[in-house]
Amino acid sequence: MAEANQETTPRQYINIELLTEALRTGNIVQFRNEFLDMHPYNQAEFFKELDEEDRLNIYHYLSPEEMAGLFENLDGEEHEYREVLAEMSPSYAADMLSNMYADDAVDVLNELEKDQVVSYLTIMDKEAADEIKELLHYEEYTAGSIMTTEYIAIVANQTVRSAMHILKNEAPRAETIYYVYVIDEDRHLVGVLSLRDLIVSEDDAMISEIMYDRVVSVSVGEDQEEVARMMRDYNFLALPVVDFQDHLLGIITVDDIMDVMEEEASDDYSKLAGIADLDSIDRNPFTAAKKRLPWLVILLFLGMFTASLIGRFEETLNKVAILAVFIPLIAGMAGNTGTQALAVAVRGIATGDLEKENKWKIILREAGTGFITGLTCGVLITLVVYFWKGDLFLGCLVGISIFITLIVATLAGSLVPLIMHRLNIDPAVASGPFITTINDIISILIYFGIATAFMSYLIE
Amino acid sequence: MAEANQETTPRQYINIELLTEALRTGNIVQFRNEFLDMHPYNQAEFFKELDEEDRLNIYHYLSPEEMAGLFENLDGEEHEYREVLAEMSPSYAADMLSNMYADDAVDVLNELEKDQVVSYLTIMDKEAADEIKELLHYEEYTAGSIMTTEYIAIVANQTVRSAMHILKNEAPRAETIYYVYVIDEDRHLVGVLSLRDLIVSEDDAMISEIMYDRVVSVSVGEDQEEVARMMRDYNFLALPVVDFQDHLLGIITVDDIMDVMEEEASDDYSKLAGIADLDSIDRNPFTAAKKRLPWLVILLFLGMFTASLIGRFEETLNKVAILAVFIPLIAGMAGNTGTQALAVAVRGIATGDLEKENKWKIILREAGTGFITGLTCGVLITLVVYFWKGDLFLGCLVGISIFITLIVATLAGSLVPLIMHRLNIDPAVASGPFITTINDIISILIYFGIATAFMSYLIE
Repeated sequence: MAEANQETTPRQYINIELLTEALRTGNIVQFRNEFLDMHPYNQAEFFKELDEEDRLNIYHYLSPEEMAGLFENLDGEEHEYREVLAEMSPSYAADMLSNMYADDAVDVLNELEKDQVVSYLTIMDKEAADEIKELLHYEEYTAGSIMTTEYIAIVANQTVRSAMHILKNEAPRAETIYYVYVIDEDRHLVGVLSLRDLIVSEDDAMISEIMYDRVVSVSVGEDQEEVARMMRDYNFLALPVVDFQDHLLGIITVDDIMDVMEEEASDDYSKLAGIADLDSIDRNPFTAAKKRLPWLVILLFLGMFTASLIGRFEETLNKVAILAVFIPLIAGMAGNTGTQALAVAVRGIATGDLEKENKWKIILREAGTGFITGLTCGVLITLVVYFWKGDLFLGCLVGISIFITLIVATLAGSLVPLIMHRLNIDPAVASGPFITTINDIISILIYFGIATAFMSYLIE
Repeated sequence: MAEANQETTPRQYINIELLTEALRTGNIVQFRNEFLDMHPYNQAEFFKELDEEDRLNIYHYLSPEEMAGLFENLDGEEHEYREVLAEMSPSYAADMLSNMYADDAVDVLNELEKDQVVSYLTIMDKEAADEIKELLHYEEYTAGSIMTTEYIAIVANQTVRSAMHILKNEAPRAETIYYVYVIDEDRHLVGVLSLRDLIVSEDDAMISEIMYDRVVSVSVGEDQEEVARMMRDYNFLALPVVDFQDHLLGIITVDDIMDVMEEEASDDYSKLAGIADLDSIDRNPFTAAKKRLPWLVILLFLGMFTASLIGRFEETLNKVAILAVFIPLIAGMAGNTGTQALAVAVRGIATGDLEKENKWKIILREAGTGFITGLTCGVLITLVVYFWKGDLFLGCLVGISIFITLIVATLAGSLVPLIMHRLNIDPAVASGPFITTINDIISILIYFGIATAFMSYLIE
């Protein structure tokens, strides 16, 4: 790995001492000079570290418009947004919200109580409020929920020169000016042009001639993960969002997609680990424990179930205590193989590769994979146990159990998420520890089932 | 979840029947008309589905330059690049490589044998070969390895008009024209301007006046994951790469960063699941089994070690067989809690949050988290076992074991990756199943250790 220098990276762009001093001594000019020269992300980083008193000063030093840029970069844990907005006067807050890009404002408003949202929208600039209201409709995690309406749209029947003129005028309001969308009189999306195309074209060329008319677009109800996949495949900086009749509704920009990618990756990862909300930092053991306990308690009770299952074989165990020795080995192998199969299935669903395949083919392949891994591990363990304990029958018992367990556990690991996905159930329920515990149970049933059936050979 | 329509999405942009027919009947004009109108990503998708004969036709129908765009979008499994390049004549392949963006060409060349690389570089256009050679130096996973040298750099002492003139000239060669980097006579990076800034500025404004001089840049040896984090934080479309003296060496564009994000997320996910190379699709059970077996076999032998540990307590087990009933429960809880702690630590390392913290604080917090979760689960299980089996001592034994196990397992889960990271060892070794197995062993030692020590109370 390369030398990373994370500790100093953000600092080099923020002069904390200077800013804090200016803030505390009330040196507005110096503060504004330094602060407004910083990238909004660094402004937000600085802002996050302040206490309430200093934050109250900032609201006096900066206009709502200047505050908007900072706020767009405060990446949002709920309580942060709420706290900070509560500190501002309602009119300042509303003014700031209306100066934010509509999609970012919507992200903030989604974290607030309904009556708060209504009150901000009422005192807000009407045009901004309308744009925001339109976006608030869309269901979370859809293309609609992450799009913005601040794009540049032009008609085809004009020259590059006049298009550039429109672009210059609309530039301050648009979230990106690097793509220009071409619409007809009914707002149907008919073409797209990059600013690069515009710049290298002759001033007198007609838009209709140079535009690209096979526009790649997403439907407004599309899953955000699918949007991210398209953005990545096509290397676009923005994607247009349309309704079912191909009317242009908005655009999604690449910066928002990077956040989606991070969110989705983190989400998949947390599910595999069986832990909620991995990304906010735990400042103390109590918040950390609160996130981990729900799964642990569920798994504790599932584990009790496993224990009661083994309890049913107490008689077998009483006679052949050595059986207990291999319980963790068999349960562990079932858990591991299940987690592998789960991971493959979840990634396959995420990349869409699995959906293209016939489901019987998937099942057959997973069964085959279980067979091969099961056979390999089963033969290995039979030999090891035989040489270790000198007991061929015990070796075969453990080996055959591993063999069957690995087939069943592999199938369980891949089928559970596939079935849930098909039933439109969030596969969160099929997270790593859950599959592991299910497979524990399956493996123990198989192991003790075989052992009890052939008990006589073991005792002899 | 929203309705995703993955099965039809790519199809709508590719007219497969038309293209295949034109290709097979040798209708070059029709083929080129349709094909060149497609987005390079769709060209690549179509190309991937062809057999060798059809591919050979394509090399005749398309110029190396046209092929370059397609090739940039063939996202690269090694053997694909090799196979396809081997089908082309060496001069066609070299010509194509020199027409690709330098960073993409480097990605391809990195997958080839050394002598192949040398031979392509020898027959390639000299200028392109030099650019590529420069990039081939950099270590994998660093900023240098993903940057491109095809950026636009200008000097500060000129007007917007003349800068726009340079930009228009260089546009066809540059990977992005949306950022223009300002350098001094020694190629030190002194400023940055977006095309947006240029477009909204007066034609006579001086670059030195409107440029942003606090450029956020990354060092050439920086880890690609850190570069992705900065790109996401700052919402940039490109980041400049500099050496330790601030000389501009190249830029990294957002499309490459999306690939890095996907790669890193997939990598973390695979490690947690204990499986190699999650992303290529397994066409048959043998390739799938080949990826999963290495970990399974390692874990099988670790499991044997666990079994031999329990074997040492055979005497205890012979006397009190009921102890075996709780083995999977305790081992399972240890595994689950360890995976949670591991996931938190790995994410913390990935986001850099953990590095800012004092290591003793982290250890103390994790111990505290283990204490709280252990206490909760321990008390719960004591009560359940007491009411189920009517044996308070057995309940306490299991409860205390869970309590101690959860503290130790939480610490193990978080410390192992932290220590590996500090020792610059790839934390792959600390993947999910590995931690789970380690924690199995720890938990069994604790459980049987306590049970053996207090044996007399259990038998009575």
